[in-house]
Amino acid sequence: MDIIETLTEKFRSFPGIGSRQAHRFVYYLLMRPQSELDELASLIQRLRAHVRTCSACNRFFTPTGDEALCKTCADPNRDAGLLLVVEKDVDLDAIERGNSYSGHYFVLGGSIPVLDEQPQTKIRVTQLITLVQARAQQGDLREVIIALSATPQGDNTAEYVRQQLAPYSDRYNISITVLGRGLSTGSELEYADPDTISSALHNRQ
Amino acid sequence: MDIIETLTEKFRSFPGIGSRQAHRFVYYLLMRPQSELDELASLIQRLRAHVRTCSACNRFFTPTGDEALCKTCADPNRDAGLLLVVEKDVDLDAIERGNSYSGHYFVLGGSIPVLDEQPQTKIRVTQLITLVQARAQQGDLREVIIALSATPQGDNTAEYVRQQLAPYSDRYNISITVLGRGLSTGSELEYADPDTISSALHNRQ
Amino acid sequence: MDIIETLTEKFRSFPGIGSRQAHRFVYYLLMRPQSELDELASLIQRLRAHVRTCSACNRFFTPTGDEALCKTCADPNRDAGLLLVVEKDVDLDAIERGNSYSGHYFVLGGSIPVLDEQPQTKIRVTQLITLVQARAQQGDLREVIIALSATPQGDNTAEYVRQQLAPYSDRYNISITVLGRGLSTGSELEYADPDTISSALHNRQ
Amino acid sequence: MDIIETLTEKFRSFPGIGSRQAHRFVYYLLMRPQSELDELASLIQRLRAHVRTCSACNRFFTPTGDEALCKTCADPNRDAGLLLVVEKDVDLDAIERGNSYSGHYFVLGGSIPVLDEQPQTKIRVTQLITLVQARAQQGDLREVIIALSATPQGDNTAEYVRQQLAPYSDRYNISITVLGRGLSTGSELEYADPDTISSALHNRQ
Repeated sequence: MDIIETLTEKFRSFPGIGSRQAHRFVYYLLMRPQSELDELASLIQRLRAHVRTCSACNRFFTPTGDEALCKTCADPNRDAGLLLVVEKDVDLDAIERGNSYSGHYFVLGGSIPVLDEQPQTKIRVTQLITLVQARAQQGDLREVIIALSATPQGDNTAEYVRQQLAPYSDRYNISITVLGRGLSTGSELEYADPDTISSALHNRQ
Repeated sequence: MDIIETLTEKFRSFPGIGSRQAHRFVYYLLMRPQSELDELASLIQRLRAHVRTCSACNRFFTPTGDEALCKTCADPNRDAGLLLVVEKDVDLDAIERGNSYSGHYFVLGGSIPVLDEQPQTKIRVTQLITLVQARAQQGDLREVIIALSATPQGDNTAEYVRQQLAPYSDRYNISITVLGRGLSTGSELEYADPDTISSALHNRQ
Repeated sequence: MDIIETLTEKFRSFPGIGSRQAHRFVYYLLMRPQSELDELASLIQRLRAHVRTCSACNRFFTPTGDEALCKTCADPNRDAGLLLVVEKDVDLDAIERGNSYSGHYFVLGGSIPVLDEQPQTKIRVTQLITLVQARAQQGDLREVIIALSATPQGDNTAEYVRQQLAPYSDRYNISITVLGRGLSTGSELEYADPDTISSALHNRQ
Repeated sequence: MDIIETLTEKFRSFPGIGSRQAHRFVYYLLMRPQSELDELASLIQRLRAHVRTCSACNRFFTPTGDEALCKTCADPNRDAGLLLVVEKDVDLDAIERGNSYSGHYFVLGGSIPVLDEQPQTKIRVTQLITLVQARAQQGDLREVIIALSATPQGDNTAEYVRQQLAPYSDRYNISITVLGRGLSTGSELEYADPDTISSALHNRQ
């Protein structure tokens, strides 16, 4: 396999990229000046060294010094009473774009397939429990919001997280909630699927 | 204009039909036997005479005798404490497919464009108020569920209906609710729009 | 089954219409005035009586008197040396929209599934042969253009028509051609399928 | 701008990649082991050094030694009488996938926007003329096939190339052809656009 094919294979493993687009990436790079390729290569090589995992929420962030916490976790103005649990960094970004949440986050780092037998190896659940206990003992945690996708795997993960947090919810009087289900913005009732209609009715207010 | 073109024009006015498909409808009919065309024509001609508007909910139904109520409104097993308000018959059908509602219905017959100056002419709001009052005085109405599309026009209509019902809500102690908003079934958090995320957070439970 | 469901079923048999859209058609009609329904019913009922099949090309047309030929077939300015064979009326309309053909037409009225054992019952091939012979004996037919879809069934039909016409092609010195294959307008080479590229190469000029 | 954002920006310049997918690429890389990032970086850095431009056709290829020609150009079994001109490497790959061409290639390296005033700076036309002359003088070039996209810019480029090659076409008796236009595989006549129908008729055979 020559370098064009080897690099095409590498790009094929990128999320959402098929072999034709991977191939186009390589041709695109072949037409860029060497200085640009050097810069790209250098960024990729240095990426992990320059990025840290936040010791509280586990999101990736670029530290400016030797801080252990990302900006959100270090921000005293965020509501320490709320902890929102997401699957991955891009979900956290989506919530931030929504501009309607001002609490803290926790990134699970994965989700649990239905009927999986070792769920604890798929997500950072032990670390989540430790964090919830610590925050609860400081007395400021009121609610854990499980914010996962409205898919079978998301629901399965949510159910597992809820069960694992249940003892602490009782002991420290913390609410465990999930995101609301219902009609999404812009959708017409006529075309809504039965499940969504059922949720929208159940969650009427 | 010959009959092919005239009939094509008629079909073009059907919901969702462009000129090419309207044309294909005419060619399709030209290939059917005359007996089938006669049957179709007869059904169209007799349609309105055989269909009645339910005197309670206003949906279209086919009476078996001289009854004034559709099957749903006449069904003593439906919960008379709930009244769900929809824009049109197909929305009511969508709710029924959801199989999770067992109360009564009311069909508004339209919706109100944003900034419309004569909202009362667009929907059957007077008739709705009369029905709500009557049911309330019989003592069995607990909740009116406004079930409209999650669009600006749907929201505008919902707001108008809510205002119009407000005095009766207070007087007779009736809840006025709207369908829940949030993630619809199958949607991934990562791709959800900010409005939907905001609703899903607001409606967490 | 009540009249709403019966009429919904009728509309479901229209080309490209599923059960939901058929249902919407019925509700649409229920909201129109009776006079409009009467007019639509009357058009459908009278359709076949007002439309004739052209005795030459077999297309549907609306005669103004007792003429047997459609306007195209009766037009002395159309090139009588060319006969273009299509599957159905809408294909003929598509060719006319192209505005680049000025010969005559013949509508086969169908196409032949691959491996079909009675092809002669699926299309008007006997009538086509009679027409080709008659035109050839008048001495003015130079070319028969088989203009069918670029699909397996279209290719199968074209092959059958070509074989049936072969003896007359030889006897009367008539060319039998098919539509050119290749890149369609607007398509990019990069995304073209191998078959299309192969045709485009073969048909280069 | 931190390294996550800087690298996201780099990926955004990749063909067909928007900011969200670019962002996902970075998170994907953050989850890979450092060894894999090093390997990817190394491939990108070494790409241009390991890839050569074929001195005949200009395609990118990975030489095994110090050869100046790609495998296709060096293959004595390819038909030296045919030269097929494409815009870019991926077009050449598409033709090869078609498996119906066995001649030589030339990559223009671009295309010419309509009304562009310096067409000679957009594509390797001087190099093409030199190659055509050389091959013609060796006596073995019979045909140049201009194989560009069926778009206005592709047509404009084809027209320019044809004009530039015209004097040599006459002098050396070389055909200049373009790819055939018409119905692409799988397309139905009924839905074909007027231009495609016009080409398909014009190119009937």
